[in-house]
This record gives sequence, C-alpha cells and structure tokens, in this order.
Amino acid sequence: MTDAHGLRSALIVGAGLMGASVALALRSRGVDTYITDRDPAAARLAADLGAGTDAPPAHPVDVAVIAVPPSGIVPVLLDLQGKRIAAAYTDLASTKSHIQVAATAAGVDLGAYVGGHPMAGRERSGPGAARADLFQGRPWVLTPSAATLAATVAAAETVVGACGATPVVMTAAEHDRAVALVSHAPQVVASLVAARLVDAPAGAVALAGQGMRDVTRIAASDPGLWREILATNATAVADVIDALREDLVRVAAELRATAGPTDPLSATVGLMSAGNAGEARLPGKHGAPHTDYAVVPVILPDHPGQLARLFTDAGVAGINIEDVRIEHSPGQPVGLVELAVAPAVADRLIEALRARGWSVTG
Amino acid sequence: MTDAHGLRSALIVGAGLMGASVALALRSRGVDTYITDRDPAAARLAADLGAGTDAPPAHPVDVAVIAVPPSGIVPVLLDLQGKRIAAAYTDLASTKSHIQVAATAAGVDLGAYVGGHPMAGRERSGPGAARADLFQGRPWVLTPSAATLAATVAAAETVVGACGATPVVMTAAEHDRAVALVSHAPQVVASLVAARLVDAPAGAVALAGQGMRDVTRIAASDPGLWREILATNATAVADVIDALREDLVRVAAELRATAGPTDPLSATVGLMSAGNAGEARLPGKHGAPHTDYAVVPVILPDHPGQLARLFTDAGVAGINIEDVRIEHSPGQPVGLVELAVAPAVADRLIEALRARGWSVTG
Repeated sequence: MTDAHGLRSALIVGAGLMGASVALALRSRGVDTYITDRDPAAARLAADLGAGTDAPPAHPVDVAVIAVPPSGIVPVLLDLQGKRIAAAYTDLASTKSHIQVAATAAGVDLGAYVGGHPMAGRERSGPGAARADLFQGRPWVLTPSAATLAATVAAAETVVGACGATPVVMTAAEHDRAVALVSHAPQVVASLVAARLVDAPAGAVALAGQGMRDVTRIAASDPGLWREILATNATAVADVIDALREDLVRVAAELRATAGPTDPLSATVGLMSAGNAGEARLPGKHGAPHTDYAVVPVILPDHPGQLARLFTDAGVAGINIEDVRIEHSPGQPVGLVELAVAPAVADRLIEALRARGWSVTG
Repeated sequence: MTDAHGLRSALIVGAGLMGASVALALRSRGVDTYITDRDPAAARLAADLGAGTDAPPAHPVDVAVIAVPPSGIVPVLLDLQGKRIAAAYTDLASTKSHIQVAATAAGVDLGAYVGGHPMAGRERSGPGAARADLFQGRPWVLTPSAATLAATVAAAETVVGACGATPVVMTAAEHDRAVALVSHAPQVVASLVAARLVDAPAGAVALAGQGMRDVTRIAASDPGLWREILATNATAVADVIDALREDLVRVAAELRATAGPTDPLSATVGLMSAGNAGEARLPGKHGAPHTDYAVVPVILPDHPGQLARLFTDAGVAGINIEDVRIEHSPGQPVGLVELAVAPAVADRLIEALRARGWSVTG
C-alpha cells in the first residue's frame, strides 16, 4: 500500500460500506480519522473494525468525506461548512451533476467542495462489509466545478491516493455521460433482457447457458437503489438507451428482411464487429490490464477431503494457486476443478499433480 | 459416468469441437464409434485422442450424428441415407426449423431423421479442444417432426444419454423461439451495448466495472458464426428484439419525463423488478436448479500451503466445499476466500475454522 499522500486528518460522515471502507483505508495509512453516522451503532462498529474514532473531530480536519445517501449530501455539506469542520469537502455519490446543481442552489461554498465517485463497490452493504482495499487500483472520479479551488481538488486527491485509488478528473456532466454508458444503461438493458423470462415457458428458460447468465447477472440488483441513480441521471441514460434502440431497430429490420441462411446481414454483422472492438477496449479486473493465468483442469472426486488433498499436493510442489473454479456435474460423482496459476509454473503443477495420481485434462 | 444406454455403434460426420466431443463421449462408454471429416487430419486427430476409428463403418450403425456446418447438413443427410449407413440420423445445428424445411424440400427420409441441439460449447474450437464431458449434465434438445418415427427419437436419445446429457423434446419452432429468447437476442443486445464503446472517450471506458464486463463478455463472439445463426432464426430473434425495444422506449420516455430525484419511475422500477424475477428463474451451473449455498468468507494469507491447510481443516470437520472463490487484494499479503457450503453445515464450518485459528468474517 501507498502512504497517506500528505493527508493528516479526515472526517467521514456515513458509516455504510463506502464510508467505512474509506475510513478503514485512511486509518490504515496512519491518517487521524473520525467517522460519524446518524446511527451511532454503525459508527461504533466501523470504529471497532479499525476505522478510527467514532466521534466528530475536536479541531478542523484536512478533508471531510460525505458518504451519506444522495438526498442527504447537500444538507450535510451546509451543516459541516457552517461548523468550519474541514478545509475541503467531497462526497461519494454515483451521479454528480444533480448534486452540483443542488449545492449551487443551496449556497454551498463551492470553492471548498469537489464531487467524487469511487468506481468500486460490492454486493453486500453496511460497515461489516467494509474493506480497506475496496478502492485499491480502481478509478475514483473527481468532478470540480468552475468554482472549485485547486487546493480543494488537491486535498481530495490525497484521500483518493491514500485509499490506493487512481484519481480521474472530469466535469460532472462528463462523468454522468460516462457512467450512463458503462453502467446505468447496461443495467437497464440487463434488467429488460431478464424481464422477458418472466412469462417464458419453463422449457425455454431451462435452455439458458452461461452467456445468458452473464448478460443478466446484474439484473438481480435492487430496483430501489437503481431508481435513485436513474432519476438523478435521467437524460444521459435516456440518450444511451435511444442510441441502443436505434441499433436494435436496424438489426430487427434487417432480420425481418432476411434472404435466408446465406444473407450477409451486413448491418448486423457490422454492429457485432463493433461489439468485438468495444468489448476489447474494456479494462480488466480491478482496472488493471487483463492478467492471463494458465488454467489447469483437474478431475476431482466429489467428496470431502479431495480439495484438501489437491491443494496439499499443489502446496508440496511449492506452487501458489491464484484462483479456483469448481464445475459440478449434477448427478455425477466427479467434478472438474480449474486451477489458475502463473503461466511459468503451470507445467510444473501438471507434472506434480499427475505424479500424485491426479487426472489432469486439457 | 453412465453406460451406453443401449447404443452399440455410431458414425459421427464432422470432427470439430462438437463432433469430436460426441465421439469421445460415446467411445468412452464402449460404443463402436466411427468419425469422418472432409479434412482427414481432423478425423485422425480426433481418433488419436480416443474418438474411435477415423473411417466410415463397414456395416450400418445404430445412429449417424451429423456435426457439420448448417449448410452442409441436408447434403450429408441425403448422401448417408442413400448409402443406408445408419438406422437413425440426427444433427447438432443451433437452429432447427430451417433445416427441417430444407430436409423436407430435399426429399430426406424424415422418418429416420430427428433434429438435435446440445446446449453446450466452449470458447475454443477444433478436435483438439474436444472433451468427453462437454455435454455432461447439459440439456440436449431433440426436435422430431410429425413424420419422425418414435424409434428414431429413441435412438437419438441413446446418443444423448451416452453423452451424459438430458434429452429435452420440443418442436423445431418451440426450440427456435426458446434459443432466440435465452441466447440469440441476448447475444445481439450484448454486442450492441459493447458497440457503443467504440466511439466513447477513453476516460469513460476506463470507468467500466465488473457489471459492464459481464453484460458484454459474449460480445467477443465471432460475428461470422453468429451471422449464420441469426440468418437461420431471423423472425424469432426479431420478435424478441422488438419486445425489448418496446420496453426500452417505455423506460426512455419515463426518464425524459422525470420529475427529479424523488420521481418514483414506476414503469422502470416495475421492469427492473420483473428483471429480478426473470433472473431468478435461470438455471444454475450445468442446467441444474439454483442451489442456494451459504457463503463463508475466510481471510487467507496469500502464500503456498494456506489453501491446503484451509481445505484440510474443513475436511477434518467432514464438510464438503461446494464452490470456492478467491478475492485478491493487489499489493496485500492477504486474500479473502469465499467457501460455498450447504446452508445446514455453514455454522459448523465457521465454528470448526475458528477453532483452528482462521479469521472468518461476515
């Protein structure tokens, strides 16, 4: 981990997953960290986990991080600025323009405020799910307005750096268009694809495979949380949806006019090729480039003790397993385990496992 | 593995991934298996891998499995039936109605033919990627026409059973509508979502996270292969796309008319809730119903031997680990391992691991 980037003290308001994770990260870098919450028990739990002191600071801090739900951000900003509790203020909300507008209208000191959005999260919520490394290697957008002072951006960047994240500076409007494209509209699309299954015959649903599961995985998200995100980024999301709709219309029209199995389907193939190119632009895990592990598939008898034996045998060979995937074959007494290892040691692992009687396929 | 289900002999025409995998599976069950290909080297490679004899059979076989590209299926059917090479014939193409129509027009003996579509595949192709367990536990659709003899369906079912797959009988039209819904239209949508990234600012693409990667993973698929699938299932796919388009229009209209952050967005939230319900209907891994495992998160020092120790300790407690996920924290000497187990034994596992000094979180 990196150091505290010059950040000496910080107040985090809101001890949910995001706020508590920021506090854990800052505290682990030696920052003098304070965390508060409307629910004192949540702040206490975060403090017990190592997030700092569950009380407001006695003296002004370098930065106040506002980690409350979007509707609470401007009132908290006004309250904290009235108390002169920090030199700089930032927040963690998923959409930025509407907060910028509301802050301006409410008379917030815009020189000392910069919007922020760390591109990280997890399925679970609350301080108990917080992790100091939640932001490690992730982009963290900062959205200064024309009124934001350079010192305010610099202060927010110390928080980002101390959390191990990478600061990305853009306007609130640029941010909102970007997340509409790479997050909000894809969420809507995934939900609508999944929604079509509700009235489908069971026999049709049963044919779904991994591709369909991947496309619709995020359709399991909470519609209540998404309502707020979509309502505060409505135009940018509608713009992306309209563009997608136009492409769908082109594909459907070409399919309805198809000349049969040999039809070149030029428009559709062109869009799918663009899809290849678009997918290839995506960053890999944790914002880092794609890491290519070698995958070693091993047949595993599906009863207790076999995984232990497998990892013991890999350990004897001195090889670190980077990741594991277990594929079950329902009704069959065997499974397939895929061990991901650094490519340089894959051959040694295969040899070691075969020498110990394992059936290594592929 | 199961037995040969009464299947004694089979000819597989086409030694690509699918044909070679069928041949490997049948041969491993003791079926007298023959495999041919336009490219003799491909058939030879499959035979060397254990797929049987790379030559046509000297005597008629029980079933001929036609595993050639769709445009070649009817010519091969006519040729094989002319030689009376098998008692029953089936194929493996991804779309069924157009082959049914073409076979009827070409004068194929429809009594001895039943369409087939195993719902399995992998990213790699060719006989070298073939696996005897490719179809294990997967659905395998059979699409008899009104003219198909019951004995033909029964013969094809012995192939499905010997491959470890589950036969699912429906009409060709039902099949084509089902795969349009759970595979073809989702593929188009994933491609179009990814295609929108082509002209996006790099700073926007950099904000993409795991959700976007999941939605667009299959956008990396080969447009040439998909052209043929879409051209042979055009109407069914266009029907699903049109329904999706109507839902997108509803969402975009509601977003453009939004009353601000507190807007209930009723239509959008309703569709997202339907998305929750649709996603929940999807079968789990390998076509089995969703199993709800309990997830036990354990902190793991990231060096060799720790996974072995963890599974040994779980094994001592007599608990079967159903699945494993490792979350790495870049730059940190610890990782988080999530063990999935039957809910009934989760508490016992937590207790056993804590007793042996493991840090179990959550």
